[in-house]
Amino acid sequence: MDTRKTEVKQGQDLLTYLREKGHRLASPCGGKGVCGKCRVRILEGERTLNQPYPGIQGITLDEWQKGWRLACKTMMNEELVVEIPDMWNTDANILVSGDYEVTLQPCIKKIYLELPKPSIEDQTSDTDRLLRALGYGEILDLALVQSIPDIMSEHDYKVTAILHDNTVIGVEGGDTTGTLYGVAVDIGTTTIVGTLIDLNTGDEVGVYSTLNPQKSHGDDVISRIGYTIENEKGLQTLQQLVLDCFNRMFDYFEGRFNVPGRNIYHVNIAGNTVMIHLFSGMPVKNIASVPFQPAATHLPAIKAKELGLNIYPNAVISSLPMIAGYIGADTVACILATDILKKEEYSLLVDIGTNGEIALGNKDGLLACATAAGPALEGAHIQCGMGGVRGAINKIEINEDGICHSTIGDQPAIGICGSGIVDAVAQMRRTGLVDPYGRILSADEASESLPAALVTRIGQYSGKPSFTITGKEEGAANEIFITQKDIREIQLAKAAIAAGIQILMQEKQLSFNDIKKVYLAGGFGNYINHDHAMEIGLLPSELKGKIVPVGNAALTGAKMIVKSRGYMEVAERITKMTKYIELSSRWDFQEIFVENMEFPENR
Amino acid sequence: MDTRKTEVKQGQDLLTYLREKGHRLASPCGGKGVCGKCRVRILEGERTLNQPYPGIQGITLDEWQKGWRLACKTMMNEELVVEIPDMWNTDANILVSGDYEVTLQPCIKKIYLELPKPSIEDQTSDTDRLLRALGYGEILDLALVQSIPDIMSEHDYKVTAILHDNTVIGVEGGDTTGTLYGVAVDIGTTTIVGTLIDLNTGDEVGVYSTLNPQKSHGDDVISRIGYTIENEKGLQTLQQLVLDCFNRMFDYFEGRFNVPGRNIYHVNIAGNTVMIHLFSGMPVKNIASVPFQPAATHLPAIKAKELGLNIYPNAVISSLPMIAGYIGADTVACILATDILKKEEYSLLVDIGTNGEIALGNKDGLLACATAAGPALEGAHIQCGMGGVRGAINKIEINEDGICHSTIGDQPAIGICGSGIVDAVAQMRRTGLVDPYGRILSADEASESLPAALVTRIGQYSGKPSFTITGKEEGAANEIFITQKDIREIQLAKAAIAAGIQILMQEKQLSFNDIKKVYLAGGFGNYINHDHAMEIGLLPSELKGKIVPVGNAALTGAKMIVKSRGYMEVAERITKMTKYIELSSRWDFQEIFVENMEFPENR
Repeated sequence: MDTRKTEVKQGQDLLTYLREKGHRLASPCGGKGVCGKCRVRILEGERTLNQPYPGIQGITLDEWQKGWRLACKTMMNEELVVEIPDMWNTDANILVSGDYEVTLQPCIKKIYLELPKPSIEDQTSDTDRLLRALGYGEILDLALVQSIPDIMSEHDYKVTAILHDNTVIGVEGGDTTGTLYGVAVDIGTTTIVGTLIDLNTGDEVGVYSTLNPQKSHGDDVISRIGYTIENEKGLQTLQQLVLDCFNRMFDYFEGRFNVPGRNIYHVNIAGNTVMIHLFSGMPVKNIASVPFQPAATHLPAIKAKELGLNIYPNAVISSLPMIAGYIGADTVACILATDILKKEEYSLLVDIGTNGEIALGNKDGLLACATAAGPALEGAHIQCGMGGVRGAINKIEINEDGICHSTIGDQPAIGICGSGIVDAVAQMRRTGLVDPYGRILSADEASESLPAALVTRIGQYSGKPSFTITGKEEGAANEIFITQKDIREIQLAKAAIAAGIQILMQEKQLSFNDIKKVYLAGGFGNYINHDHAMEIGLLPSELKGKIVPVGNAALTGAKMIVKSRGYMEVAERITKMTKYIELSSRWDFQEIFVENMEFPENR
Repeated sequence: MDTRKTEVKQGQDLLTYLREKGHRLASPCGGKGVCGKCRVRILEGERTLNQPYPGIQGITLDEWQKGWRLACKTMMNEELVVEIPDMWNTDANILVSGDYEVTLQPCIKKIYLELPKPSIEDQTSDTDRLLRALGYGEILDLALVQSIPDIMSEHDYKVTAILHDNTVIGVEGGDTTGTLYGVAVDIGTTTIVGTLIDLNTGDEVGVYSTLNPQKSHGDDVISRIGYTIENEKGLQTLQQLVLDCFNRMFDYFEGRFNVPGRNIYHVNIAGNTVMIHLFSGMPVKNIASVPFQPAATHLPAIKAKELGLNIYPNAVISSLPMIAGYIGADTVACILATDILKKEEYSLLVDIGTNGEIALGNKDGLLACATAAGPALEGAHIQCGMGGVRGAINKIEINEDGICHSTIGDQPAIGICGSGIVDAVAQMRRTGLVDPYGRILSADEASESLPAALVTRIGQYSGKPSFTITGKEEGAANEIFITQKDIREIQLAKAAIAAGIQILMQEKQLSFNDIKKVYLAGGFGNYINHDHAMEIGLLPSELKGKIVPVGNAALTGAKMIVKSRGYMEVAERITKMTKYIELSSRWDFQEIFVENMEFPENR
């Protein structure tokens, strides 16, 4: 429970505000007021307390009168004192411990110094004068040494030293200790999300998210690697795209939060191995073919100015370490954020993004593998698929009376996103519209056993049966349907992940009972209906009740390192304690994969 | 004694050859066959042994027949076996121990690696594969990491790692361990001298020397500092001049010794504090005025590419550390080369160049001071003065019969260099042409006591008496004379140095008896007539017999660091154990300086 008084930002919703302040509230519905998970209790705040009960999901009239509200639906129009119940965060408690019990101890710090002025009795050089006052350290580079004398004399020897561990990376005139920011970024194949962090308070000042602009040169890592092989300057092109994107993020932080780039001294990134390589301009071509070796699994020290990033020129650019070509800094960050390696009990981590990475283990060590799940579960390579943005169908309910669905932002449907697909496929199977092998019944076959409300939705696409979810006559922007090929795509994706889980369990000789928690990372893991994921065999149904969605745990891991230097060592330990299993080299993978193509028995 | 057989370089003289190979032979006369100090004994070499005795200075007929020769006058026309007697080097033995008993252990090394190729069982990244084979280390920077994968795969994973201590600064395809060079440079205010060193053998492959091109912007450090203050881009201009000069040196090494710049991996420099600052582009303006503090007394790590030097891009650029604005890396290098700080006995080091630096002490610590001796002792600011180059009068003998002189290269005299000035002034004083206060007698006064051969040489210049050394009628290119102002310049210079010595001795409470050795560094120290230097009071006559000329000891110190990494720590210790005495802040300096303006009593 946290009852700190905080400043009000007029017109912002309380959920967004509390999250920016670093409070973790579950919100599986994405702030749409339907899941009821972001409940908070208003203790002070007259206008908010006196609002009439709107009869919303998850809060009774009695609770409403006691001050309980959904944070996502509470606008901040006055100063509030809020109680945030721990009980609502139990299924994400590992993130709380990973993220918010962090001791603020950034690797970047500022120290204000009032240096004695040079005199005939003390002719110490300017740089030695600085280091003498610090009592340790060295100066980063020649350019900095060249600049120090003028800064010192122009500011009367009152300066602020900026330190990265024991290295002075900058000197600023006067006392600038009040402004010290870092940024943590998760570079996903599809989306890039960055968090601006005040390193004096640990506050998360704001978030920037955008599509990865490299998408114009390929949806997945393989096609981007291909682009660098086929185009002489391809690597530089892709690198520049992501660097430009970072600079737009810094512009946004300046415009929106009044934090100019020159006050950002550390950027730590997570991302898959290919994304980290492309960001830093390391060649990726060997990652695409056997034996898939990366150029490096550790970035050397990089200064912002080397990459042309518009922040403090000597700002430290770091990345979490990587493990292999397909187990990257993002997986290491997820393991860091979920703290799996510290636990006695066995945990399973599944990060479903454009690729699927899986890790299994406990304090004695982890196994990890990567599956080429493909982006189908993100809505790509699906006929009417789309990302999880406004207008995407994100929830579907199919029963004998027909179909209900909801869209993100309550907009007219324009497509279907990953969670919607899983809903659709699971229930098409449950109702019998799809057989155990993934075949959509024809209208003729279906009419024998299924109600007309469903049979009438069976159509044809590319000479095979398809199934209509909605159309213009139901208010959608266009007809939205599931094709036979869509079902196959989902089967391939879910079979890859299921086979990966099965192989890691075999390797560890673990049964489902041994696994106490299943951490689902990635946006998809947050929004997916877990029952439906189990119904299609994406996750083993034996793990029901153990699932903990951890959101963008890769970003969380990246933030932990910005906030507290000690975590880089933990991340290093993770790479040493995690054994990578190359699925493509296993004689049994193909067999297990094919076994998992079928849908599980209806229960 | 060294009787190694070595390859012959046709037509080169043996002195130059032996020095290039790292042997130390005294040659105060500069290889002109007159001092007799570069004696060696030819053990094998028919043609050389059978040459007729030319009756030269320093070698008797008997010695000649036993194979003794002057190395400077022995041309190498066949393979020789040579004995180099230690006895001739006794007065420079510290240099021998400092320089040539160096254990070859450069900070740069190459290691050839045949790496296992990546396989599905061993997907280790390229950089980790390299570091794993080395067993330690880290990669210097991102640019290097970016380049490693291609170098490895193109050379079948057979590569040579180039290491600076524990950092990989480069990777070359195949086995390149055979080519590994370093360069040591002394950046003097007037001259720049660099030695190319084969780091596999320790051999000194060749030497490059040239005038410091910054001279066009001022003869001394003060005028160069002034240039950077008066001109907005002055610092960059002066820096670029010296960097261009380095690149010409590298071109010369390639053309003359067939060692391309890309095979040079380390450049270590000595030089005064201002020269080191100008080389590295650090601001110097504060060195010119009280309290004279430098920007830095240590250079940070610098890569050749940062300075635009045309050698291996990641070659290490280092400097010996400095002590103060006027006690620089050159003095530290001299202290290193003379090993003063290791001795029980007290030593005095006097480095007379454009400035005069003095150090005094023993293993318990040193005191050092700098005197603004000015460049008069190098022939500058003297009416007919010039540097020690061809055509300069370098030796003068004045007696009652008149004057004899010699010139460098036996050319018609065009001016007078430092050693010639000291000769002239000492003997003008001895003969009485100059009184104890430095006044040149008028012809009238002189005619009372001095022979006509001298009196007729007394003329007038700028309304004051002058003294003619030679003229066109004696075969000189022009009339060469000493003016009253010249005498004053020499008085100022010698008084400054003498006062410096006196103050350091007072501080240490030492008498002349306590000082066992006087190391004279700098070219001037090698060529000067020590008796004359004492007669004018440049050096105390009480130290007679203790003088050890050590030549360009600054360069020697710089070379030691290129050859053996451990010396950088010794240099560091020197800076910590040497206390700088600021003469300008001492109440007694002016008085002692004025006392030393007079010439000592004639003995």
